[in-house]
Amino acid sequence: MKLIIGSKNYSSWSLRPWLLLAHHQIPFEEVRLSLGSAEFKQQLATYSPVGLVPVLQDDDLVIWDSLAICEYVSEHYLNNQGWPASAMVRAQARSASAEMHSGFGAIRSQLPMNSRATGRRVPTDGQLAKDIARIDQLFNRCRQTFCHQGPWLFGQFSIADCFYAPIVVRFRSYGIVLSGDGQIYADWQLQNPALQQWISDAEQEPEIIPGDEVGQT
Amino acid sequence: MKLIIGSKNYSSWSLRPWLLLAHHQIPFEEVRLSLGSAEFKQQLATYSPVGLVPVLQDDDLVIWDSLAICEYVSEHYLNNQGWPASAMVRAQARSASAEMHSGFGAIRSQLPMNSRATGRRVPTDGQLAKDIARIDQLFNRCRQTFCHQGPWLFGQFSIADCFYAPIVVRFRSYGIVLSGDGQIYADWQLQNPALQQWISDAEQEPEIIPGDEVGQT
Repeated sequence: MKLIIGSKNYSSWSLRPWLLLAHHQIPFEEVRLSLGSAEFKQQLATYSPVGLVPVLQDDDLVIWDSLAICEYVSEHYLNNQGWPASAMVRAQARSASAEMHSGFGAIRSQLPMNSRATGRRVPTDGQLAKDIARIDQLFNRCRQTFCHQGPWLFGQFSIADCFYAPIVVRFRSYGIVLSGDGQIYADWQLQNPALQQWISDAEQEPEIIPGDEVGQT
Repeated sequence: MKLIIGSKNYSSWSLRPWLLLAHHQIPFEEVRLSLGSAEFKQQLATYSPVGLVPVLQDDDLVIWDSLAICEYVSEHYLNNQGWPASAMVRAQARSASAEMHSGFGAIRSQLPMNSRATGRRVPTDGQLAKDIARIDQLFNRCRQTFCHQGPWLFGQFSIADCFYAPIVVRFRSYGIVLSGDGQIYADWQLQNPALQQWISDAEQEPEIIPGDEVGQT
């Protein structure tokens, strides 16, 4: 099984399925393509019909979206334990993950993931403030509801945590502090050895994408 | 079970889970909120933590995203038959649905869904042309691969068809014609009685959203 990803410093979409595989210590071959390089599109075209990372290749099967990859990994390598066991909790975890999958445009554009960066500051008004407030609300509500089942967003580690890991990495870079249980959850995510490995790998990458280097230090 | 949707004329996200329920004749209560009305946000706030349609309410459970609703309906009301039975085909159907869920920004912004409109024309260059070409490629590849299993995108009717129904409705409004099997599939979708019911309901709606009324006649 091959996971094709972009640069660990910048590719927030790649982090999601990578974290699911790495956290569960599922063996896979990592193929890292340098985002923004001249060869990126050409190399990626050999794997993906859409030209986006991540892509999972498992024998002849090609899966070309982060959420679909996570669903597949859950079904085939985790005995469906990628999601909470309770049908009601699972539906909420899927809602939260899908909300991340299609939303939070202001966070995406104004707080680009930059795994190795710390101490950056950007203005956080307008729609960005609303996006951050929604994250704060979601993290707090989830933790208050599921805290008796474990320290993750929906109790046990799930795909939803993989989907919100890039948010936590961004907030670390730009100094966004959440309220109460929301920040406790963010701190918990950042202590995950698999996520720490991703950040440490990002620190070793040479490439710089100027458009994603934002914020005052 | 209650499905909260926006206007059938304009709400492409609402169409997806509605079509899944309607096609399979699963009983549900439809709560239609008038998109763009003064009361919309206030009414919706009683159902959704995010302020977006669609929302599914099933007893105490609230599911606030179109894809998560479809996954839930498949698990609980369709014995998992919302997706293809083959694991490999299912992974591809989920990839295609998720690609729609997060992508095709040019189609979204330049070809807003307007179910009752026909005979509209808009310029289709730049990124919009790329989005349309990708749809053409996807429809053709899927139909050529799965035609022996049935007339839908992945053979039997699946959630992927629900996710691409709003595209087919848009292309009908703006006169976008696909190549070969792509157009045959689009025509097939438009003959689905459930989708015809949606369009017919949209024709009865009084509200007009000026920003979504685009194109020359």
